[in-house]
Parts: sequence; structure tokens; C-alpha cells
Amino acid sequence: MYDTVIIGAGPAGCAAALFSKRYGCSTIVLSDPMELAQSEEAPLVDDWLGTKDIKGMDLTNLFREHAKRYEAQFKDEKVVSITKTGNGFVVKTEKTIYKTKTVIVATGTKHRKAMVNGEEEFSGKGVFYCASCDGYLFKGKDVLVIGGGDTAVNAAVLLDNIGANTTLVHRRDELRANMANQNQLKKTKTKIIWDTILTEIVGDKIATGVVLTNVKTKEQKEIKVDGVFISIGSVPTSELAKGIGVKTNENGYIITGPDQETNVPGIFAAGDCTNRAAKKILTAAGYGAAAATSAYNFIKSH
Amino acid sequence: MYDTVIIGAGPAGCAAALFSKRYGCSTIVLSDPMELAQSEEAPLVDDWLGTKDIKGMDLTNLFREHAKRYEAQFKDEKVVSITKTGNGFVVKTEKTIYKTKTVIVATGTKHRKAMVNGEEEFSGKGVFYCASCDGYLFKGKDVLVIGGGDTAVNAAVLLDNIGANTTLVHRRDELRANMANQNQLKKTKTKIIWDTILTEIVGDKIATGVVLTNVKTKEQKEIKVDGVFISIGSVPTSELAKGIGVKTNENGYIITGPDQETNVPGIFAAGDCTNRAAKKILTAAGYGAAAATSAYNFIKSH
Repeated sequence: MYDTVIIGAGPAGCAAALFSKRYGCSTIVLSDPMELAQSEEAPLVDDWLGTKDIKGMDLTNLFREHAKRYEAQFKDEKVVSITKTGNGFVVKTEKTIYKTKTVIVATGTKHRKAMVNGEEEFSGKGVFYCASCDGYLFKGKDVLVIGGGDTAVNAAVLLDNIGANTTLVHRRDELRANMANQNQLKKTKTKIIWDTILTEIVGDKIATGVVLTNVKTKEQKEIKVDGVFISIGSVPTSELAKGIGVKTNENGYIITGPDQETNVPGIFAAGDCTNRAAKKILTAAGYGAAAATSAYNFIKSH
Repeated sequence: MYDTVIIGAGPAGCAAALFSKRYGCSTIVLSDPMELAQSEEAPLVDDWLGTKDIKGMDLTNLFREHAKRYEAQFKDEKVVSITKTGNGFVVKTEKTIYKTKTVIVATGTKHRKAMVNGEEEFSGKGVFYCASCDGYLFKGKDVLVIGGGDTAVNAAVLLDNIGANTTLVHRRDELRANMANQNQLKKTKTKIIWDTILTEIVGDKIATGVVLTNVKTKEQKEIKVDGVFISIGSVPTSELAKGIGVKTNENGYIITGPDQETNVPGIFAAGDCTNRAAKKILTAAGYGAAAATSAYNFIKSH
């Protein structure tokens, strides 16, 4: 019987693990080996307070090493269900089961799909969601980035840096990204196509072009590209939590109280899968630490 | 007219400054030059995720340098009042006034001191105020916890859980802590010395023992210890916020909503001065980042 099972090994899960072990709890972190944390995809992080300009992969590895210093166990096992038992929970993975007094859900988000023809067919064959994972393939090539938020702008900056001929396609006439990121973008050679959405991806065995539609004039045009990076937002990974009765909001984000508690006693949640407005590496980690504190307080009082 | 004035230059204030500047806001951080942030007091911090074993002072300086990279201004000016104006607030310091659209209160707490000989001299050298910050050093060692309230009892439970030989010293013959915490304490091996106060801390370069005085018999005894945790309470610094009508709980902590908003529109709060259960450097910084995000969203929508 563990004190705490943590699902997810991103910033929230790592922070929860570090604090849980520091409170003297027995703790295991379970994560799907097929999923990267979004922090791992970030090409360059400069909003982890106190640490300037670090690769997201490196920062996330520092997080895990730090939690492991306290002998937090990490296992690459995809969780398939959480169920209630008399005195706690059973967390079932594809390989085994874990009994625990508390669960911290830190499952993050997945990339939102554009839901256009060709997206599924050419996924991984010219269609990508993570510039820092797959951008290196496109040096000297023509790429589009779809979106106007921080992720999209960061992707465009990175692709330009890699040497791709980069065009950002945004459905509005101004970007949503923060000013620091927009200023970075202005230093690049990135072109921007405003008021335009992606409506189709075309190709043969690999993607060779896209159809774009101007949302104001309704005009369509097909252009040739070597790669498309879709950066139009995220969807929360909250199915496991929902399965045990945890309440989510209208967009599927887990509803948490002030100290990261959910409506199910003994289940806590932290990070991008929750309904907090700020979705940053630092806020995820802070909320993960708070969740571990609440789980420890819960165990003490039961 | 600033977008955001941040009061306090600890982890919450620094995180708020970093994010506020990254959102493109005009921001100034005001702090009382006579007060240290609690993070600065910590002799060795090992719960800042990703950074092992760093002096609290050094970590806090890294935070400030990082925020300054984005040209956040820091001023050593004690704030004396916040008042509402037609379209924002006036923050008055001992030197001047600042007009601003939003305020982030990150004023922290103060430890209640025992006011005994040796306390100042051995602070950080065997004398501590935060078991969850520094308790991990005392596995297998002899420690005293001074106090009988929830913080003291929680500290004793935590130190026992960590594996310290723990003795609680309380001036009365019963604890003030709630029953849940007292029941938890009974499950540990913690010894209790009743009717006794700390009257001196002795040592050479580090604390090596304490003098305790029985308040009924007046008998004094000196005992050897490796560490003393003084847990006789914290006092939130919330007078400024109260002055403009921000609601606090019965202990004076600022009541904040899920995204760090207070009951006064345009005033946000983060860190140890708020009513969140977890009071850590990492949670303070996470909440500070969230407060900056909420302040930015507030400015955008007004």
C-alpha cells in the first residue's frame, strides 16, 4: 500500500514526487512511455524562475533527477484505470496494479487536432505537433506553423532558427502570444498569413501541400509545403480521473479546490490537466507541490 | 500608470515580476529593505525543483536576476498604503507614490520569535523555524520542537516521519493543536515535555543544546540536541491589503480565489501571506506566476 501514486512525470508530477518523499511518504510515479510532457517539447525555456535559457528536455530531466534523489520511484507504465477500495484506491496499469491511500493526477494535456482531411493520413509524414521534436528535419525546407498562441510562435521561432523557410498561419489579425515571444518572432524571417485557417492537407505518400482558407474573403488557395506544424492548443488528459467520478469543467479540465483537492476525497490533481488559468511549467510545479502537501495532510487525518 | 505594482520581492513577487514582464506589462516590485524574504533565511534549500542544495539567499538572488533580465524594476521602498482611484490604485511608499492598474500582494509572513539568548546567533546553525524546509537534515538526530499548536505538532510528526528522535516542548499541560493532528502525533514516537519553555540556546559555532525551564517548578535543565525547531507561529503580513478592504481569514491570511484573485477587483495575492495550505518556495513562486497571469487577463478585459 503506497501513500501516494502520482500519474504523470511532467513538472507537476515531479514536484509532487519531490515533496511527497520529503514528507516521508511512500510514493511512485507512473507515466505513459508513449507520451512526452509538454515541458519536454519546449525548445528553450526561460520562464523557470532562476534558470535562464534551458532546453525543455534538460529541465524536465533535472526535475526527475531531483525527485529521484529522494528515492521517488518512476515507472514507464501506462495507467488504465483508478478504482476505489475500502481504504484507498487501486491504480491499474497495463502491467500490474498498485494499492494506494491517495492519488495525484498530473496527466497534462495532449495537442489539439485540426480535424481536417489529410491530417490523420499524413501524421508523422509531414504533419507534426511538436517543432522541437521534429523541426530538425526541415532545414532549408518550406514549413507552415498553424496557430497564433505562445506554442505556435515558439515553434515558428525555433523552425526559423533551424533554417526552415517558415510561415505562420493565424486565423485572426493579431497574435495571442505574449510580448516576449512576439518580440522573438520579429527578429526572425518568419512570414505571417493573417485571417486564415488550414482546411486540408494534401499529398501522396507524404504531405506535399495544404489548402488554406481566408476567413474574411472565403478565398481558398493551395500551396506547396514540406511540413506543417499544428499548434492550435491543447486538450486535457482527464479520462482516468473522470472514470472514478472526478468532476471536470465544460472543456474537460479537472476542477480543483484551493489546495488541489478534487471532489473525490483522496484524489488530488495538478498541472495542465486542471482548470487553473495559468498553464506554465512553474505553475504546474507549484500546484504539484501543493497537491503533495494536501495528500500528506489527508493521509495524516485518516 | 503601471500595469502592475508587486509588493514583496520574495519567490512570489519575483515570479510575478518575471511573468508580468513576459506578458509585456509595465511592472515594478516594491519591497521593505528591512525585511528578508523567508526564502532568504533558509540555510540550504533542496525543494526548489531541479536545483539541488542551494543557499536560500543565493536562490532568491537568482530569482531577482532572472526577473531583471526582463527589465523588471525592483525598488527598496517600504509601502505604507494602497488606495483606490477612479481607474486603478495608488501605492504610496515612504518615498513616493505609484499609480497602477493592478496590485499583486506578495508580502509573506514573519516567524514569531522565541526571544531567547542564542536564538539570533544560531539561527540557521541548529535553530530553525520550518521543519518541512530543513527537517530532512535531521534523520537519526535529536531534535526539539518548541510549541503546542498545529504548526508545532505537524513539525513533530514530520520530523518523526523523517526519522529524527523528536521531542516536543510545550509551555502548557495540553496541546492547542486540533485533535486530528494530536491523534497523528500519538502514532509517532515523539516525546513530550510539558509545562516547559525554552529559555536559552547554547553552542559554539553551531547550536549544541538548550536550556529549558519548567514553568511550575521553575527548575532549569540543560539538554544536548542537534536541532531546535521553533514553531510558535507565523504572522502574515497583510495589513496593507486589509487597509484597502481585502478580506482575510481568522488568522489574518489573505483569502484568494483559484487564480489568486482577492475580493477587491484588480488586487491579487500570492505566497505565504495567503490562505493556501502549502507554504513553500515552489508553491509561492507558482502562485506568483498565476497572479501575474490573472493580473494580465484583468488588464486585457478592462
